[in-house]
Amino acid sequence: MHAADGWIHEGERADDLQRNGLRILQNPQKFCFGMDAVLLSDFAQARAGERVLDLGTGTGIVPLLMSAKTEAARFDALEIQEESAEMAARSVAMNGLSERIFVRTGDLKEASALYGKNVFDVVTCNPPYMNDGAGLRNPEEPMAIARHEVLCAFEDVARESAAVLKERGRLFLVHRPHRLAEVTACLREYRLEPKRLRMVHPFADKEANMVLLEAVKGGGTFLKVEAPLIVYESPGVYTQEIYDIYGY
Amino acid sequence: MHAADGWIHEGERADDLQRNGLRILQNPQKFCFGMDAVLLSDFAQARAGERVLDLGTGTGIVPLLMSAKTEAARFDALEIQEESAEMAARSVAMNGLSERIFVRTGDLKEASALYGKNVFDVVTCNPPYMNDGAGLRNPEEPMAIARHEVLCAFEDVARESAAVLKERGRLFLVHRPHRLAEVTACLREYRLEPKRLRMVHPFADKEANMVLLEAVKGGGTFLKVEAPLIVYESPGVYTQEIYDIYGY
Repeated sequence: MHAADGWIHEGERADDLQRNGLRILQNPQKFCFGMDAVLLSDFAQARAGERVLDLGTGTGIVPLLMSAKTEAARFDALEIQEESAEMAARSVAMNGLSERIFVRTGDLKEASALYGKNVFDVVTCNPPYMNDGAGLRNPEEPMAIARHEVLCAFEDVARESAAVLKERGRLFLVHRPHRLAEVTACLREYRLEPKRLRMVHPFADKEANMVLLEAVKGGGTFLKVEAPLIVYESPGVYTQEIYDIYGY
Repeated sequence: MHAADGWIHEGERADDLQRNGLRILQNPQKFCFGMDAVLLSDFAQARAGERVLDLGTGTGIVPLLMSAKTEAARFDALEIQEESAEMAARSVAMNGLSERIFVRTGDLKEASALYGKNVFDVVTCNPPYMNDGAGLRNPEEPMAIARHEVLCAFEDVARESAAVLKERGRLFLVHRPHRLAEVTACLREYRLEPKRLRMVHPFADKEANMVLLEAVKGGGTFLKVEAPLIVYESPGVYTQEIYDIYGY
């Protein structure tokens, strides 16, 4: 029997994260993490001893990967969906990380009430991208809640991130290009100044389909736009950078 | 004697624009156009019969190139520096374009008073990029005025563009990445919604050093981030796209 087998519930599987032997529990019928979460966990930077909060952690992919990639002291992870939060907590326990990653079920709209103000060095968030939630057929489905702004709007992410971060604390986000202007304007309204931006393009000659963004609470106005991140070298073949990020 | 010789004043030269036989008068001791203006004139789109205004036209490079690349009916060009405006007007006459490009000496801060409100389909602008004008030693120099916000701030560009554009009219800008968040937030305050963004990188693996941006007056929130524009294939060798834009 594999060491992880006792942790796996019916319908779930334990996927190898190709990093420090980490595995993550996922239910492919419900929701699996995507490349966006993997890229965010690589784009985000946390220094030794820092305290990190992941807003809307889902099954915990971002803090799990960041626990391997950084020397941050402690990760808190907040997830509104009870079932996802419970799976995230089991993944944390399965990986022996219960002393470093702390999963909590709760609403990110209340993050500053739950954790307090000015307490985190870093916030990470892979928020719902789509603001068309009103037209959804099944807005209560886990996938809908993860992808559409059913239970929170981007402004909630900005407001709560600004509240829980220390002055000069950093917010790392992944979002969709089509909302970039709105997202950056909203961040600035909460004194979260965009400082570093990276566009993700499926191919070098195609439109971006993701953006990675770092904002600093109380930071000065100066944005760095990094070299584009290209996903595919040719159809079906990742670029070396993507292989490196995934750790293959 | 070359056909252009009679047009050239002392210290000036007539440079071949590699497009429809166009030439432009420049004084290399004062200010010569850069790649940013060439990229802007290619990024900007004007349809047959449309009316275009170039704010801060300098020696007229953007309307000159766009007169060759588009079927726009009429270009107005506003320049605050008397000497540049006079050179631009001479370039227009030298190219036989006096019926299509109209240069005026004046302050872009008063564009809507000079031209009226809701009259243009398209505005183009290659504004001063740097907001450090207060520290300049010679703020009255032509180069300083073109590059630093000595005589206008970005908010003036946004306000006047919004005023002179028709509803759904388009503003095309080139700017520096480090001010992108501020620029897009300012545009949105004047109902100029960013709709199309293209990053310009000197090399594929380097930070962006220019951004090209299209905003639509009264447009909906949806930004498209185009494939990155890479300038150099290898040191000293332009990419094919740059050669195509320059018309070599």
